[in-house]
Amino acid sequence: MSKKFRQKENKKERAKRLNLVVEQTRSQILEVTKTNGGHLSANLGVVETTVALHEVFDFSVDKLIFDVGHQCYAHKILSDRKDKFCTLRQKGGISGFPDAEESPFDAFSTGHAGTSLSASLGVCEARDRLGQDFYVIAVVGDGSLVNGLNLEALTSSINKPKKLIVILNDNGMSISKNRNGFYKMISKSTTQKGYVKSKRFAKKLFGKNFIGKILGGVRNLSKRLISGGNYFEKFGFKYVGVLDGNDVEQMTDILRRVKNVAKDKAVFVHVNTTKGKGLSVAEESAELYHGVGKDFSLGSGSMSKALGECLCAQIEKNDKILAVTAGMKQGTGLWQVEEKYPNNFIDVGIAEEFAVTFSAGMAKSGLKPVVAIYSTFMQRAYDQIMHDVCMQNLPVVFCLDRAGFVGEDGRTHQGLFDLSFLSHLPNLTILSPINEYDLKLALDYALSLNSPVAIRYAKEGARSEVELKEYSQDANLVVKEGTDVEVLAVGGRMLDLALEFAKASPRSVKVRAIRKVNSLDGDLQSLTAPMIITLEENAIKGGFGSLIRQFIKLPEGAKIVCLGAKDDFVKHGTVKEQFIDSDLTLENLLAITNI
Amino acid sequence: MSKKFRQKENKKERAKRLNLVVEQTRSQILEVTKTNGGHLSANLGVVETTVALHEVFDFSVDKLIFDVGHQCYAHKILSDRKDKFCTLRQKGGISGFPDAEESPFDAFSTGHAGTSLSASLGVCEARDRLGQDFYVIAVVGDGSLVNGLNLEALTSSINKPKKLIVILNDNGMSISKNRNGFYKMISKSTTQKGYVKSKRFAKKLFGKNFIGKILGGVRNLSKRLISGGNYFEKFGFKYVGVLDGNDVEQMTDILRRVKNVAKDKAVFVHVNTTKGKGLSVAEESAELYHGVGKDFSLGSGSMSKALGECLCAQIEKNDKILAVTAGMKQGTGLWQVEEKYPNNFIDVGIAEEFAVTFSAGMAKSGLKPVVAIYSTFMQRAYDQIMHDVCMQNLPVVFCLDRAGFVGEDGRTHQGLFDLSFLSHLPNLTILSPINEYDLKLALDYALSLNSPVAIRYAKEGARSEVELKEYSQDANLVVKEGTDVEVLAVGGRMLDLALEFAKASPRSVKVRAIRKVNSLDGDLQSLTAPMIITLEENAIKGGFGSLIRQFIKLPEGAKIVCLGAKDDFVKHGTVKEQFIDSDLTLENLLAITNI
Repeated sequence: MSKKFRQKENKKERAKRLNLVVEQTRSQILEVTKTNGGHLSANLGVVETTVALHEVFDFSVDKLIFDVGHQCYAHKILSDRKDKFCTLRQKGGISGFPDAEESPFDAFSTGHAGTSLSASLGVCEARDRLGQDFYVIAVVGDGSLVNGLNLEALTSSINKPKKLIVILNDNGMSISKNRNGFYKMISKSTTQKGYVKSKRFAKKLFGKNFIGKILGGVRNLSKRLISGGNYFEKFGFKYVGVLDGNDVEQMTDILRRVKNVAKDKAVFVHVNTTKGKGLSVAEESAELYHGVGKDFSLGSGSMSKALGECLCAQIEKNDKILAVTAGMKQGTGLWQVEEKYPNNFIDVGIAEEFAVTFSAGMAKSGLKPVVAIYSTFMQRAYDQIMHDVCMQNLPVVFCLDRAGFVGEDGRTHQGLFDLSFLSHLPNLTILSPINEYDLKLALDYALSLNSPVAIRYAKEGARSEVELKEYSQDANLVVKEGTDVEVLAVGGRMLDLALEFAKASPRSVKVRAIRKVNSLDGDLQSLTAPMIITLEENAIKGGFGSLIRQFIKLPEGAKIVCLGAKDDFVKHGTVKEQFIDSDLTLENLLAITNI
Repeated sequence: MSKKFRQKENKKERAKRLNLVVEQTRSQILEVTKTNGGHLSANLGVVETTVALHEVFDFSVDKLIFDVGHQCYAHKILSDRKDKFCTLRQKGGISGFPDAEESPFDAFSTGHAGTSLSASLGVCEARDRLGQDFYVIAVVGDGSLVNGLNLEALTSSINKPKKLIVILNDNGMSISKNRNGFYKMISKSTTQKGYVKSKRFAKKLFGKNFIGKILGGVRNLSKRLISGGNYFEKFGFKYVGVLDGNDVEQMTDILRRVKNVAKDKAVFVHVNTTKGKGLSVAEESAELYHGVGKDFSLGSGSMSKALGECLCAQIEKNDKILAVTAGMKQGTGLWQVEEKYPNNFIDVGIAEEFAVTFSAGMAKSGLKPVVAIYSTFMQRAYDQIMHDVCMQNLPVVFCLDRAGFVGEDGRTHQGLFDLSFLSHLPNLTILSPINEYDLKLALDYALSLNSPVAIRYAKEGARSEVELKEYSQDANLVVKEGTDVEVLAVGGRMLDLALEFAKASPRSVKVRAIRKVNSLDGDLQSLTAPMIITLEENAIKGGFGSLIRQFIKLPEGAKIVCLGAKDDFVKHGTVKEQFIDSDLTLENLLAITNI
């Protein structure tokens, strides 16, 4: 609809139009997510606010930067990807996260939490130095606002520039229902002084009539406009909030005025939204419906489920064991510990660094923390794992779920670097269990050591049946004997591939499951096959294959081929498609051994 | 002096004794630092507070956890290392940082900023779950309090436990003279309500008489006791401050009472100290005297100095170039940019993660940020380098100063992992300039690329004279021809060693300077010598040698030896001693080639 036409609209017509856009956008999100799976609750909650943002700003010029990006679906539909949105999370299709390569409307690529304030300040800095003129709008959830990176940006000495608008999308769900101290603080900081100030500000912002009509009087609005104000204003923002982010008409009116106020000063807009809005089951269990599969299915990974069970069994025996996560209790299976042993469960919110150093402190003083965080998010705590845990050789067990290819979540979420960033760390043992039962054995072993251990595994374990043994110094398993080719497979899915290959190949193939990745003990030092193949769901650089090439003396004249993720970020698609793109296929194994 | 005797002391005697301990401790710090070099300003400033802490607490039971650890000298002297303190920073001697392996009085090993609050909360958590009883005292400087990791701990949902005392040692120097927003906020948060509350609290804490005598009346003290109070109290602390941390008698009295108050509730004690106290030049230029060499010498690294000069020359030509650091402007040489082009210099304080993502935002929008951070501290921003810079292929240049062995600062500060955590990152080019002029060439090249580049170098460049060429796709240099052995040397000091070996060896030695570490182009693909040696100041795992072994086809039957840091954290000593321990010596090269 052209701007010219819109100007002729009356209030009622505008309301009708906006609500229609909201309805259509939400329907499209529901429809496509039902077919393709995706992030549901957060995306549903933010539709009205996004429609209002698109009504007020021009994102071919202004920049919209999402934190994490679980909230970007409506923006994708409303900018330039309405027609392609049906390809969401499919290979070659629309990414489930903001992606600057995909569209100029995605101002900054994201996927991990905590980046929006820093990136937005950087974009504003460039804009002002280069004499450009546009608005920068950061949309950040209450869960990721308290990530250390955002807090560094918030408290930093960089001046909060004009034409920067931060929208805090507060759906009250992200951190264990807001037990977070920060959240408590901004909610409680209502003061008489703030009230008076905001009352005046509210009048300026909205005008008397507007407020009277829309929100039932200045007093009421002002009360809602002040909590938290003191806090963010100290850091250089004008504060507006708390608003109803699911009221598209109000949001449009207020954002129009915020845009005006932001001409002179950065503005922090605090909105409440209902996570999962428009799908009753998701509204009721927003955390459960955070990410869904096809037909809104909720099945968590079988390995994740197994971790929760193993941990409960361990805690039953030893009360010193604590299950720690950073806002991922559903995905990591730790919800089971919370249910059964709430006193032995700690969710610190989206603060991976704190989770690790806090656990280092606990381990230094006699507890046995088990820290479960997705592989991709564990990257955030690389320094803490090294400096606080490994350097002091502390018994912290890290469980890296979603290690390897993650499929549809794509390049920001791949667990393809953990072997590369962990395997050079002194004192750290890295285990790679094959299946659900093997995860139990790995955890038993890890908890028996008095030193740091990382256990990494994909969401699902091996389908093949394998006779397991307990972990020990030499934990690797010869699963099948053979003489022509030896395959060293890291992780369950790679073991499946290796066994499939052994069956199909005309050659005599030996298959070894690598369950201990970075200690190259035992039989590995005396490989005999004339051809060695390493298979891993990790970057080839710095992965298991690189350790083999560096530290294992191969038989005279032997050939070695290392397969894994190539030297690039792996985009969304199915796990199978990602295997194909990385040459991790039966066909490729048959081809390279057909010399 | 026995406790029994102390009880008989009168006020005057106690004052005399405490001040004597202060004087002796400060003398010893000055004396030893003058001989051995070390961290000066922060350690001098905190003497009185540390003497008071030791007077009030028993650190054979209570736990003292330093943030960073630039302030631990007095504690080492006052606990169990007075006699050994003369061995400070020498091989086998006392570490310059808290080290739990060195003494049970060091409750948690540190070196990087931001860990103290998280670790302390972890220790308290373990204490309370295990039914133990002791105080945990965290000492944190104003510079590192605002690091993201500390902010995550401060704002986290973990309850602030009793018998936790956080001492904010505010010497007002750490972050570019406190331009930091956080600092402004806690300084300004004085309110009438806070005043009244603190007045009552002050009476309870100190008693009327005490205050009247020591500090000239309740009113005065209370005024000093309230700024910032609101803020920290929101996060579950009782707040006391601002106190004179250089007044040992007052600090002792107040800490005794704080100890009492802390029986029920976590207490946050804010003290002002004078950095460099006791050495007039250090008091006047505390930042300059942060770390000193023998005889308080200030010489910064020649490579660091060169970076500042190169950057000034580049900015002269291109105003879009910005020099960014995270609290290291002296050490990285960026002070020169600040002096000459203050508008193109940004110091974000000790917030490496923010520095990188902020720079990603700037680069996405047309600027050319050059981020200079020590190798060891860059570890903190691993995820940001990957997820925010490399994934979007943004033109951010990272300058990793102090890469390689750092000598006396020891294991928390070694730059021995950067090749391992960077070389697997897609889109990133890694350069390793040989000397000061080569750093200029590397920076020219880096700024000419439209993609991320990391330049890594030790504090000092090569002594050898080498004919350089501009960087290009194939940047490595054959410095000396030879046929029996080929040495691939990464960085200036390794090149010096290689050339020394070539001269001393009876064999014909070819020496190649590796200036581009992770792109194995050109001649590297056709090595011809029957023996290849790689030399690098990096962990052997995941370093340059591992890339050569994985990606370069060696001549038939050729032998390869990869030398670098072994699989352990390398403790303090001279760089030369660290070379010896890692077999990076002429003698070893001669031995392994004497087949």
